[in-house]
Amino acid sequence: MKVQLQKVLPAEIERRSFEIIGEELGGIKLPADQEAVVKRVIHTTADFDYARTLCFSDGAVEQGIAALREGARIVTDTQMARAGISKPTLSVLGGEALCYMADEEVARAAKENGTTRAVASMEKAAVLDGPLIFAIGNAPTALVRLYELILEGKVAPRLVIGVPVGFVNVVESKELIRESGVPYIVARGRKGGSNVAAAICNALLYQAKPRE
Amino acid sequence: MKVQLQKVLPAEIERRSFEIIGEELGGIKLPADQEAVVKRVIHTTADFDYARTLCFSDGAVEQGIAALREGARIVTDTQMARAGISKPTLSVLGGEALCYMADEEVARAAKENGTTRAVASMEKAAVLDGPLIFAIGNAPTALVRLYELILEGKVAPRLVIGVPVGFVNVVESKELIRESGVPYIVARGRKGGSNVAAAICNALLYQAKPRE
Repeated sequence: MKVQLQKVLPAEIERRSFEIIGEELGGIKLPADQEAVVKRVIHTTADFDYARTLCFSDGAVEQGIAALREGARIVTDTQMARAGISKPTLSVLGGEALCYMADEEVARAAKENGTTRAVASMEKAAVLDGPLIFAIGNAPTALVRLYELILEGKVAPRLVIGVPVGFVNVVESKELIRESGVPYIVARGRKGGSNVAAAICNALLYQAKPRE
Repeated sequence: MKVQLQKVLPAEIERRSFEIIGEELGGIKLPADQEAVVKRVIHTTADFDYARTLCFSDGAVEQGIAALREGARIVTDTQMARAGISKPTLSVLGGEALCYMADEEVARAAKENGTTRAVASMEKAAVLDGPLIFAIGNAPTALVRLYELILEGKVAPRLVIGVPVGFVNVVESKELIRESGVPYIVARGRKGGSNVAAAICNALLYQAKPRE
């Protein structure tokens, strides 16, 4: 077989990709405020299921953008999600991305309390000052603990991006966060991931950043 | 709706997840050497499509494990893939994970040659000494340049993990690498990603590491 590459300039690839996504979404009408998020997640995964599974509390995108413009910090549950977030954009806005999974204090707390580092890292993040966005792409235990902390009045995230992936308590953890009363963007079902968490953060960041 | 969490100890979640994956794969019979890789990718994505799309050159898994046991370095095309690779396991084997996307020399070379950083980062990695594994989860341009470098005799990877995701030249870049003559693990079609690249590396690493 002769493989034939398409002639598309590197700088044009992203634009062309979003065109293809728009074409293939066809009849699916996305709400205007959600469109950039949904399309960026499909761009990151090539998985059109997300057009159906991503769900948003009312005004979640607008609230996330507003928080980022106030310099919100983004707390992730994996180094991978943190690595995928556009740091130049975030730093222009005065924010930063944090992950406490490799933190020694968190490792110690998890051991002492017989819990997971994911849980302990949420507890450490909950006491941070200033506006917070949580982006959970891996551990349902992190999302469940975050739900409890919200109900206990110990943290009030400006937005929770709840997109852990997997087979045990993943579906349930996302449904819990939808009942927490805080703004959310959730991928219902089993699918999600650190890449999805980062893609959602970036879709918000690109909208939040000042026009050049 | 009352959300009910399953009672599974954190330490049991991964084992239980792999059980569920095995059950749901049902009739699909995976070759013994490929099973751990395919299941780990499904564990990372909750996407059973990979049972169908992942393809392996003869002996690719065994060759990858052998290279890791010789201290192979893993070169990725994103910081995200690098972040997702199990560094403790890799370092026990004497390897390391490298990504040159943020390298200043690479940025300069890309600018001077009117190419992408993904392409320039492959050129920089090609001259590294010792056994190399490439894990490409994002940029088809990186995979295409790697194919050319292999054909030009400038690099001889011990394994290429070719799993970029997307809509432009992604499918084609993977088919090219399958014709390169080097051992490969490729996710045919549009799907893939940095998370998939890291998951494949980890599935190999967990098999390569010395028994405790």
